[in-house]
Amino acid sequence: MRIKSIDWQNNKIKIIDQTRLPKRLEYLYVNDIRMLWRAIRQLKVRGAPALGAAAALGVYLGIRDFKGIDLNKFFQTLKKVSRYIASSRPTARNLFWGLERMNRVSRENKHKSINRIKFLLLKEAKEIIEEDRLLCRKIGSYGEKLISSRDSILTICNAGILATVDYGTALGVIYAASARGKKISVYSCETRPLLQGARLTTWELKRQGIDVTLICDSMAAVLMQQGKIDKVIVGADRIAANGDTANKIGTYALAVLCRQHNIPFYVAAPYSTFDLSIKSGKEINIEQRPAEEITTLFFKYPMAAGNIKVF
Amino acid sequence: MRIKSIDWQNNKIKIIDQTRLPKRLEYLYVNDIRMLWRAIRQLKVRGAPALGAAAALGVYLGIRDFKGIDLNKFFQTLKKVSRYIASSRPTARNLFWGLERMNRVSRENKHKSINRIKFLLLKEAKEIIEEDRLLCRKIGSYGEKLISSRDSILTICNAGILATVDYGTALGVIYAASARGKKISVYSCETRPLLQGARLTTWELKRQGIDVTLICDSMAAVLMQQGKIDKVIVGADRIAANGDTANKIGTYALAVLCRQHNIPFYVAAPYSTFDLSIKSGKEINIEQRPAEEITTLFFKYPMAAGNIKVF
Repeated sequence: MRIKSIDWQNNKIKIIDQTRLPKRLEYLYVNDIRMLWRAIRQLKVRGAPALGAAAALGVYLGIRDFKGIDLNKFFQTLKKVSRYIASSRPTARNLFWGLERMNRVSRENKHKSINRIKFLLLKEAKEIIEEDRLLCRKIGSYGEKLISSRDSILTICNAGILATVDYGTALGVIYAASARGKKISVYSCETRPLLQGARLTTWELKRQGIDVTLICDSMAAVLMQQGKIDKVIVGADRIAANGDTANKIGTYALAVLCRQHNIPFYVAAPYSTFDLSIKSGKEINIEQRPAEEITTLFFKYPMAAGNIKVF
Repeated sequence: MRIKSIDWQNNKIKIIDQTRLPKRLEYLYVNDIRMLWRAIRQLKVRGAPALGAAAALGVYLGIRDFKGIDLNKFFQTLKKVSRYIASSRPTARNLFWGLERMNRVSRENKHKSINRIKFLLLKEAKEIIEEDRLLCRKIGSYGEKLISSRDSILTICNAGILATVDYGTALGVIYAASARGKKISVYSCETRPLLQGARLTTWELKRQGIDVTLICDSMAAVLMQQGKIDKVIVGADRIAANGDTANKIGTYALAVLCRQHNIPFYVAAPYSTFDLSIKSGKEINIEQRPAEEITTLFFKYPMAAGNIKVF
């Protein structure tokens, strides 16, 4: 059975706590925006499309308990909540897109009662969830045409069920090809530093019955040189108007290596990842995260010499 | 003070136990060839040039206690010892070169007494150690001419003090440039799976007062694209007659990335790393190591989903 990585249940945001995977499939019920902010920052919920849904539901969480009938105050609260959620992570376009959609709905209905606006905001957030499910399936059905049976496909990070509501973008293409009876093998880059490939992509592909082999990120080039990779498919955090794409560190290296080895390189992403307001990738704010993600395993076990500079 | 990663002391091979670094600088005294074999296989001693010295000293360890005056039996033992040491790791040329040098000395002196041959073998092994010290300094003084002050240099794995007797090949170039007063910054790839860059290169460069910054292997491409890398220098495990070079996984990727970004890529290695008996890299036996080196941190802490295929 397919799992949902994010959903609205019992008036809470229900997410898979992805920091617990692959050890445990554990759900987290998020009841306020501070908890949501931490869940996003700590990558308990992650993946650009899933963040779009999380941000939208977060807006509703943030205004749900607003008391009174002062519309101005209500909109101030909405703005504050949106800004707060926006500060959780900078790169994934979908997060901001989710916030913008929610704000548009509230603006378009500002003549209505606060209760009505609250209702419409929750409706919009639920629609975003439904839309993401459909978008991923569309990406899958368009994308699977590019895949041949017996293809060996390399991917990095996790652009699957766990990165979206329930199907995936890059991995959605693989699921769709597999559903069509094509035999696919996947190589999953472990994706340092936080190992989304090793922990999440291998876990979900195996669960869906797809043949998957784990490699270190540094091994991709040799597999390409040996003719073991037919295609590379990755997800995206943000895509500029000129097509420049930001995605997990290591993605650009794969693109260069594909060029050298004449291997097709595909980016699978919904329209909500596109940022047509920026001309090129130069304008994308790339997230920098704590050094401990590199120097320790899960902030616990040292992996590097002490007191060193880290990029 | 400069440390020696391998030496002959009190009739034992004294090595730095590199699996203890960077936590502890601990020496291991190796007294028999089984212990040496394990130390090599487990990378307690590692780095092609250091393995040349280890193999040579190992041959002496293996025949030192030979009793009797039967030359045939002596040579049979020598052969057996050499084959045993040769089975510890397949790729580094220097290991076999060390064994061959020892065998040549014994052949050239086969008319002498066994005690005399033993003496000459120990002498040869000590000469290999001395020679490696000189070779690394030569590599340093030739190589440093390629380096400009303020260069930012990327390296992978550890081709330094810890990979040689006491100076390094790729890092030897950096030490020599630094000794000449050139200001160098180094980026060290962490070098998955066994993190020789994160654990050893950062440790030894910092100890020698060289500015060093740790990155994940997957980050090199982005630094190159941002113009932050002036040169790449790496060591080598084996170099074929046509120049094809085997080195730690990830090295080939860096070479391709250098080509894309017009960055000079240098391999620093002594003549003992050259294997002129093979025409190209296709004939190099590339070591495959246990999956657990990727799926766990130090064979202890899980880093990946369970029961998955690993390349």
